[in-house]
Amino acid sequence: MISIKEHMHTMGRQAREASRTLLKTSSQQKNDALLAMADGLEDSRLALKAANEIDLEAGKAKSLPAPLLDRLTLSDKTIDTMSAGLRQIAELPDPVGSLTASTIRPNGMRVGQMRVPIGVIGIIYESRPNVTIDAAALCLKSGNASILRGGSEALNSNLALSLIVRRGLQKAGLPSHTVQIVETADRDAVGELITMTEHIDVIIPRGGKSLISRLAEQARVPMIKHLDGNCHVYVDQHADLIQAGDIAFNAKTYRYGVCGSMETLLVHEAVAVALLPVLGKRFTDHGVTIRGCDRTRQLITQAEVATTEDWGTEYLGPILAVKVVDSLGAAISHIATYGSGHTDSIVTKNISAAEQFQREVDSSSVYVNLPTCFADGFEYGLGAEIGISTNRLHARGPVGLEGLTTLKWVLEGHGQLRL
Amino acid sequence: MISIKEHMHTMGRQAREASRTLLKTSSQQKNDALLAMADGLEDSRLALKAANEIDLEAGKAKSLPAPLLDRLTLSDKTIDTMSAGLRQIAELPDPVGSLTASTIRPNGMRVGQMRVPIGVIGIIYESRPNVTIDAAALCLKSGNASILRGGSEALNSNLALSLIVRRGLQKAGLPSHTVQIVETADRDAVGELITMTEHIDVIIPRGGKSLISRLAEQARVPMIKHLDGNCHVYVDQHADLIQAGDIAFNAKTYRYGVCGSMETLLVHEAVAVALLPVLGKRFTDHGVTIRGCDRTRQLITQAEVATTEDWGTEYLGPILAVKVVDSLGAAISHIATYGSGHTDSIVTKNISAAEQFQREVDSSSVYVNLPTCFADGFEYGLGAEIGISTNRLHARGPVGLEGLTTLKWVLEGHGQLRL
Repeated sequence: MISIKEHMHTMGRQAREASRTLLKTSSQQKNDALLAMADGLEDSRLALKAANEIDLEAGKAKSLPAPLLDRLTLSDKTIDTMSAGLRQIAELPDPVGSLTASTIRPNGMRVGQMRVPIGVIGIIYESRPNVTIDAAALCLKSGNASILRGGSEALNSNLALSLIVRRGLQKAGLPSHTVQIVETADRDAVGELITMTEHIDVIIPRGGKSLISRLAEQARVPMIKHLDGNCHVYVDQHADLIQAGDIAFNAKTYRYGVCGSMETLLVHEAVAVALLPVLGKRFTDHGVTIRGCDRTRQLITQAEVATTEDWGTEYLGPILAVKVVDSLGAAISHIATYGSGHTDSIVTKNISAAEQFQREVDSSSVYVNLPTCFADGFEYGLGAEIGISTNRLHARGPVGLEGLTTLKWVLEGHGQLRL
Repeated sequence: MISIKEHMHTMGRQAREASRTLLKTSSQQKNDALLAMADGLEDSRLALKAANEIDLEAGKAKSLPAPLLDRLTLSDKTIDTMSAGLRQIAELPDPVGSLTASTIRPNGMRVGQMRVPIGVIGIIYESRPNVTIDAAALCLKSGNASILRGGSEALNSNLALSLIVRRGLQKAGLPSHTVQIVETADRDAVGELITMTEHIDVIIPRGGKSLISRLAEQARVPMIKHLDGNCHVYVDQHADLIQAGDIAFNAKTYRYGVCGSMETLLVHEAVAVALLPVLGKRFTDHGVTIRGCDRTRQLITQAEVATTEDWGTEYLGPILAVKVVDSLGAAISHIATYGSGHTDSIVTKNISAAEQFQREVDSSSVYVNLPTCFADGFEYGLGAEIGISTNRLHARGPVGLEGLTTLKWVLEGHGQLRL
């Protein structure tokens, strides 16, 4: 029997080979494959649901928590969503091959950059079979070969999906190793995936923070990772307070569990008296617990005491930290100290305050007069999203197809020589 | 006495703090600092040369090889070059704060991206004091704080230079920790630098491949690294053979030791007979040893036998591997198998051959009708170069000021909410 290490390295070599063929592939071929996969999903509902049922039964026997079972389920609706997603991705413009503006050097040679696939992408995710299709499609459209490693509880569902993916690739004349699914539940497979720097160019983990931190600890392959989303809304002294209240309320209550959810509200002292009592009541009426600084607690009587720990916490739930600050500078400094560099917003009517906030807040997304819950690739118009990156290099914030590509230099001349 | 670990972490924290102040800094202030440093260099020739003399004496006592002593020397000419470099960098446009084209979403919010500094950059280099000034200047201009770790043989020279840097920063009102020089020769300092992910955002090593590979093995901080430059020129069947000969000759002989130097020449079989005998003689007359495949050796009688190892070797010297190939596809495939993804060029008059080569060769720079020795940030018009990256992510190929920055999303609205 071959070892996990050998097995994963074989997958890696096959992926690299497929990625080379993808460089010769037309957009039409890639789109044909995506559409064939969409047809395949719709035509194979029964088989998919049967495979999924095996996973669900095993999951129930293992007493998986209800939300986990829910995410594991392939319903008709999930299948429709997946096939619609594939058709949407087929319609997006192909990022590969586009050229940046180029310049002519004094010696007459032309210098530009071409957008190209990254190469081979490893995706590590939990037991959500819909991610299999989503990740496969985004990697394919951006010209990358992919190796997908989903949660072991979804293995049968993923194997059934991988059949459909493979048939779609075949129909379009693409190499079958363009998308490979790790078919073993052995955890060592992940260890190999994140360290095979010769075969894998980037790892994108999708899942909880603890999984991602653990992978990042051990990885040798570069990772596009999403860690904390400790997001702030700062209400400036020059804010429209009606707008500020609505933005803050939306930022917190759109969905508590999304990474763009506001976790701390910062309010300039000049508007705290006018804003906080009313807004505090609106939050607590909605079931949101407020934890405030001393000045906040004078204005929102039902507020609990906020400790230093609260400023650094991503609650992902109906709790909100509130702090009154002396100035815009104090707000920016608070965000620099406690924020996670994800998404932060200022509410203000004042141009210089907006500019200063945009320039000095060092987060992957910085907003003016918008709730932080807009942190999402679709909302940004990317047409797709493989995740949100909290990295500083390569891709920051929502990552769409372009984030799955890179640039190479292309130079054209007519025999110029270097002297 | 504090430990190296504590010492490095303190430097890291100070750098992070300085990087926050840099976000508020104008281009004018940064340029003022650069010009003050240039003045400082010119005014401190004697002190610099005295400090350098200590390093040179110690180096001679340790019998350092002559080329190393040469690179260690701060002559009047080196000092002039450094100060001219500073003035040049001051004149380059500031990449920070520029906005990409933005779009308006259906709900009216504006989505764009702003170019921002990476944050804190660690530079690790050998005993070349001029790199101290060069790296400090490029990091400063791009708005980054930097921690510089030069070779221990140059410590006294670097300390003298760091005084000038610090005075320049002071004169412009910038924090003195904007540029910090590691003042200990202890090798553990490097170990800390490449693993302090909380303080350092990227490491740029400058030096030989073995140093860089070793650092990459141990690093936890992302690295912009330069490994092999196994570069190819492919002469297509549709090449102008006069041009092809000149390009190949220039690509090899411009300078043997640069990373863009051609290491393997690939020639289409249809033009091998017309090209190789003459070109082979030109190379051997110039002192270049040819190692060829069987078909090459029939055309260049003085050629030695090339082994598989030759195809993968970066000679960095007067040796050239030559192979006759059946087709453009075979050339691309050879480059994919043996190349290092650095810089590769096709010589052809045929548009589709040029396009296919440009698209399918997966290297950081792909040329048409140009010698590979153009691989250089100044030649590309970047105005400056911190190095050449063989990474696939973030920065590929020559890295100028833009490669030392990243993009953040900036969104502007007027109270739009997410439903």
